Amino acid sequence: MRVVITDPNLRPLSDELESLLPVGTETVWATTSDAVLEALVDADVLVGPAFTQEMAEIAPGIRLVQVAGAGTDRIDAKALDGIILANTYNHENSIAEYIVWALIALRRQLPQADAALRQGRWLSPVYDAALPQPHSLASASIGFVGLGHIGRAAWRVLRAFGAEGQAVTGSGRADADGLNWAGDTSQLSRLLNESDAVVVSAPLTDATRGIVGAAELKTLGRDGVLVNVARGPLVQEQALYDALRDRTIRGAALDVWYSYPSPDGQGKPATAPFGELDNVLLTPHVSGITRQTFLGRVQDIAANITALAQGNELRNVVQL
Amino acid sequence: MRVVITDPNLRPLSDELESLLPVGTETVWATTSDAVLEALVDADVLVGPAFTQEMAEIAPGIRLVQVAGAGTDRIDAKALDGIILANTYNHENSIAEYIVWALIALRRQLPQADAALRQGRWLSPVYDAALPQPHSLASASIGFVGLGHIGRAAWRVLRAFGAEGQAVTGSGRADADGLNWAGDTSQLSRLLNESDAVVVSAPLTDATRGIVGAAELKTLGRDGVLVNVARGPLVQEQALYDALRDRTIRGAALDVWYSYPSPDGQGKPATAPFGELDNVLLTPHVSGITRQTFLGRVQDIAANITALAQGNELRNVVQL
Repeated sequence: MRVVITDPNLRPLSDELESLLPVGTETVWATTSDAVLEALVDADVLVGPAFTQEMAEIAPGIRLVQVAGAGTDRIDAKALDGIILANTYNHENSIAEYIVWALIALRRQLPQADAALRQGRWLSPVYDAALPQPHSLASASIGFVGLGHIGRAAWRVLRAFGAEGQAVTGSGRADADGLNWAGDTSQLSRLLNESDAVVVSAPLTDATRGIVGAAELKTLGRDGVLVNVARGPLVQEQALYDALRDRTIRGAALDVWYSYPSPDGQGKPATAPFGELDNVLLTPHVSGITRQTFLGRVQDIAANITALAQGNELRNVVQL
Repeated sequence: MRVVITDPNLRPLSDELESLLPVGTETVWATTSDAVLEALVDADVLVGPAFTQEMAEIAPGIRLVQVAGAGTDRIDAKALDGIILANTYNHENSIAEYIVWALIALRRQLPQADAALRQGRWLSPVYDAALPQPHSLASASIGFVGLGHIGRAAWRVLRAFGAEGQAVTGSGRADADGLNWAGDTSQLSRLLNESDAVVVSAPLTDATRGIVGAAELKTLGRDGVLVNVARGPLVQEQALYDALRDRTIRGAALDVWYSYPSPDGQGKPATAPFGELDNVLLTPHVSGITRQTFLGRVQDIAANITALAQGNELRNVVQL
């Protein structure tokens, strides 16, 4: 079998992937469009984020398009026609870890304390009685907007810290133990009112675009913090910037953005100058980017290629 | 009963404390030395960090000195003579939370990514294949130097992320489930060799002062990170600075210091310029400073005063 791999994130794990594939599998790593098209001519499997009609036409033998992540937004459904499409996750524990990091930092204002101490100023209620004592996660009430793989993984570890939680989801159901309640998105205002931290991990759809705006942030309140690990546009950019600048919420951690960089990794992540604020954590869409995420994905990918070779059932098959 | 309270950290919780004391208890809040001495004349209980022979002489009726934290280093043993001394903890979960925050930040270099993104540079292996994929806590091997209240609380939550762990303690024993092994401090080099993160939470004694020096940091290694929530001098200052500056370890989170500020909270935390490094998290001894810590302490303190009034047994009695 000939497997063409176009996802550069898998490159550091090429040994691990190749060691898991059936004996005799030929792997071709290709990143430029020309190299990809040339490699696809005799390919049985494509491992990569994108599949077009042009690629389908040049690769009549292809039987599996395996996305090396969750997103299938660059797969042309019309190009598939009988080809199996599968994806993989494995990012949920790394993103959960990011969420915990962000919530602790924001609630306890540790980055601000770090910046002050570098100037010799000990920013602590022990030295300044006017500073409030921050609250630990043991007293946190976390509101989840979306509770899929990511939200559930975050809730699992946040419970270990003693936090409480509630969720709104597209279906109104939550497949998780121990929440105070779950409802559909008509309960969003109640969620924000009852929560002192909100974790956004819902998919971006017409129904969720801009779901958190000025009114919602006001309901979250002055002591509230927001973590977005989903897609930037779920939260309205200007409303979020205004709330952070005016301190009508306490802080935010943003890993997903309104603009993405050129391939060299240069570019502003938003129109509003979030980078000028000290109550925002800015990260470059790395919440799920760990070696453990990609090791898990390599195992899923190899399992699917093996299953295809042996005529067995594949995992994580997606119907577009 | 007359209770004199000198610890300013309890001031924000005065309502909570007073509501838990036996009916008829008189509380006096005093912070300056003169006010403390004056208030002590008829006192039955002192709640505060320090007790001297002068205080004992002026307060013949005192029966309980209740420290509002763990440390009894400012209590003069000779002044006690028949007076009960008790302390309280309740900081362990807040410190555990700080340790988790620090380990995630250091291992995934999230503060560096934040600083870069503020300049429009997306510091991620997705955009720069030369950057290594960071490792999640699921693959972490944590070495604990000391495993008391704090180390055990940290281990409990780190296990929820899938980390492995080992410990060296003064006794060589570890009262915790699931560790790979525990040994005495003769095993420190092995611990550092097998761990990619080291958490220092041992007491400062003649035996532990400077226990982590240049050789130990070299053994921890280039990918290793260190978190110190115990006392600064357990880790040799210059050796730590050199290792961070020369990147012979990856990073450190320091909440405890080599110098402490004047009461106004101004002052350098160390002689070496840690604040010039981007691979250090500097915090002003706040890892345990949360409202939940002090709420727990207020409950312990009120329980002891109530027990004293009722002739019952006290908790956390300390023999100096």
